Amino acid sequence: MEGFSDGVFGFAATLLVLDITIHPPGTALQQLLHAWPYYLAYVVSFLTIGGAWLLHTALTEQLARTDELFLRLNLLVLLVVVFLPFPTGLVANALHKSSDERVYVTLYGLTLLAIRLLGSALDAYARHEHLYSEAKEGEELHSTQQKFLPAVIGYVIAILIGLALPVAAVALYFGLAVYLVVPFREAARVLRRRHSPRQ
Amino acid sequence: MEGFSDGVFGFAATLLVLDITIHPPGTALQQLLHAWPYYLAYVVSFLTIGGAWLLHTALTEQLARTDELFLRLNLLVLLVVVFLPFPTGLVANALHKSSDERVYVTLYGLTLLAIRLLGSALDAYARHEHLYSEAKEGEELHSTQQKFLPAVIGYVIAILIGLALPVAAVALYFGLAVYLVVPFREAARVLRRRHSPRQ
Amino acid sequence: MEGFSDGVFGFAATLLVLDITIHPPGTALQQLLHAWPYYLAYVVSFLTIGGAWLLHTALTEQLARTDELFLRLNLLVLLVVVFLPFPTGLVANALHKSSDERVYVTLYGLTLLAIRLLGSALDAYARHEHLYSEAKEGEELHSTQQKFLPAVIGYVIAILIGLALPVAAVALYFGLAVYLVVPFREAARVLRRRHSPRQ
Amino acid sequence: MEGFSDGVFGFAATLLVLDITIHPPGTALQQLLHAWPYYLAYVVSFLTIGGAWLLHTALTEQLARTDELFLRLNLLVLLVVVFLPFPTGLVANALHKSSDERVYVTLYGLTLLAIRLLGSALDAYARHEHLYSEAKEGEELHSTQQKFLPAVIGYVIAILIGLALPVAAVALYFGLAVYLVVPFREAARVLRRRHSPRQ
Repeated sequence: MEGFSDGVFGFAATLLVLDITIHPPGTALQQLLHAWPYYLAYVVSFLTIGGAWLLHTALTEQLARTDELFLRLNLLVLLVVVFLPFPTGLVANALHKSSDERVYVTLYGLTLLAIRLLGSALDAYARHEHLYSEAKEGEELHSTQQKFLPAVIGYVIAILIGLALPVAAVALYFGLAVYLVVPFREAARVLRRRHSPRQ
Repeated sequence: MEGFSDGVFGFAATLLVLDITIHPPGTALQQLLHAWPYYLAYVVSFLTIGGAWLLHTALTEQLARTDELFLRLNLLVLLVVVFLPFPTGLVANALHKSSDERVYVTLYGLTLLAIRLLGSALDAYARHEHLYSEAKEGEELHSTQQKFLPAVIGYVIAILIGLALPVAAVALYFGLAVYLVVPFREAARVLRRRHSPRQ
Repeated sequence: MEGFSDGVFGFAATLLVLDITIHPPGTALQQLLHAWPYYLAYVVSFLTIGGAWLLHTALTEQLARTDELFLRLNLLVLLVVVFLPFPTGLVANALHKSSDERVYVTLYGLTLLAIRLLGSALDAYARHEHLYSEAKEGEELHSTQQKFLPAVIGYVIAILIGLALPVAAVALYFGLAVYLVVPFREAARVLRRRHSPRQ
Repeated sequence: MEGFSDGVFGFAATLLVLDITIHPPGTALQQLLHAWPYYLAYVVSFLTIGGAWLLHTALTEQLARTDELFLRLNLLVLLVVVFLPFPTGLVANALHKSSDERVYVTLYGLTLLAIRLLGSALDAYARHEHLYSEAKEGEELHSTQQKFLPAVIGYVIAILIGLALPVAAVALYFGLAVYLVVPFREAARVLRRRHSPRQ
């Protein structure tokens, strides 16, 4: 299951770069700078897939066994992850045109939310069916679980804001992806240790 | 063999998203809703590849060894799996245009049937050549084997229906993919346990 | 090294399907049938990559260790494998147009030959530097080594024929790919055993 | 982590071939020869990704453990590696048109430099946090570390040269990729041994 899932996560992340294009008019530099929505959408989607992969890896590492339903739920997670390049492309294309972007940004937000919800459903199912090994510690998995509720609330708020201010919603999606990927406690520990007089 | 096969399954599943596009006329929302054949074809093909991967994984897990012919038969399975994005794109493009869709839906159905037949041929060859380890249980493999005959009959019926009613055939392909992926017995067991007075 | 190499082989094989397209004029069925050069080129390239992967796997399985040069030689093999979808697309596009096809078919043949030569160079280097484990049998690797000279002679003849008769050369490339993939001795053994009075 | 990273490296390397195209006017051979910037850009980017993968593999092999920040830093490396096909395509498209190429070649050089810097940051972090196992030798990793400073200086010089002479910069990027991939000491050892009177 890991080989297939890792492959799909990696592919979906890589396909995102195919969406990046530049268009006239303007000089080469102006065209490159003008393509900022593509870079933004690429980074948000890459970080979201990266965050989903981190959860998936933490979860897989702690598994003692899988069952048939778990494998199917995993397929459902991958189905939505693979879908992400489509709304990513729509959002990147539309960020300059005010009329379309609300619908696309909403679809994008719903896809991001679905990735997080399904990833956590996989985790909840594994816990409910006692698929996890008791022995391992799983700090990574624990901190992801703690971020679940704030993240879902954040996505719902961002989706609602996106109905009026699409660009603000994309900025929020970026913030949420960073929030989900950055391990604040671990980062703080490393920084603290570096500044302490002796180790 | 597993790394290569898992990669190809994952890759073929991911390429499907490249087929999804939207076209004028209409508002952004109308265009998105009007693209339903793409979503349907994406889900049917993803689930069919997912089902083939589940069979492949169940089969691989039980292997005690491989032989040269098995590796070649496996390549043949992958050759057809990788081909699937092509008829998927044709069907998705044609579902709105009545004249073309019969031919494309037939090609699509034949490809789906070939994936199932070749996957089961791999299983039959492994059994005939005693490549399986005796020790392991292999419930997943067993339930897939039991679904083989109903699935093949279903595909043949759907292909015949598709000659007259292409959209109905695609709906049947969706049903068959769900039938092949959902583990009814396991799902029933989980549900029964949840509703029993004590566990 | 295996994960990366298997991924690249799998990707290159899967990208081939993106080359398959259909074009007007004609009915849907006529367009599908008229696209035969795409199917032919897809099958030849897929089988060639499959054959290269079989050699690569047989070789990797027998390795006791790798060294720095081996990893670089492996990168060179992959560089040419990944290049294959480009001449494949050119050949498929050109098989209907008589003026262009000679050049493209020649480039295609040179790429196929390079894949075989570099794959065998990897094998020769591993033998020369004693990277193989002595213990394992490696029947697959042995039979691939025996096919090396006939295959190279076949490719050179096909490339020369392609300068005059491009379609004949593509048919020869198909034959060579089948020759390199099919394990004749193993197949004969399985067939013989099936027809013998008792096992 | 290895499966996902290997997949992403392999995928990004494979996507590069999609950039290669030929254009009229001219005969088929002229078009093929005229597409040299695509081949050059393909080879430079493939070798750069190959070099980054060699560093990544050498680094991963020596890891005794990972921590949360290491996994995130790894995602950042992959984010830049996956981005590479975009500037590669721009450079290949622009090498014939004098006005645009400076900007694109600069973006390309910055991306190549970022891949090397982030790869080495991953190595530096692993050393600083004592993630490496002490036991293993890691000659490959050691020789990559020694090439770090010359490579970075080389990239900065090439980027500056590219502001005036873009084609010269691409030639320098090619030289740097070769420098980073070729294991000079190991190659010298193999050659010396071959020419010594007895082994």
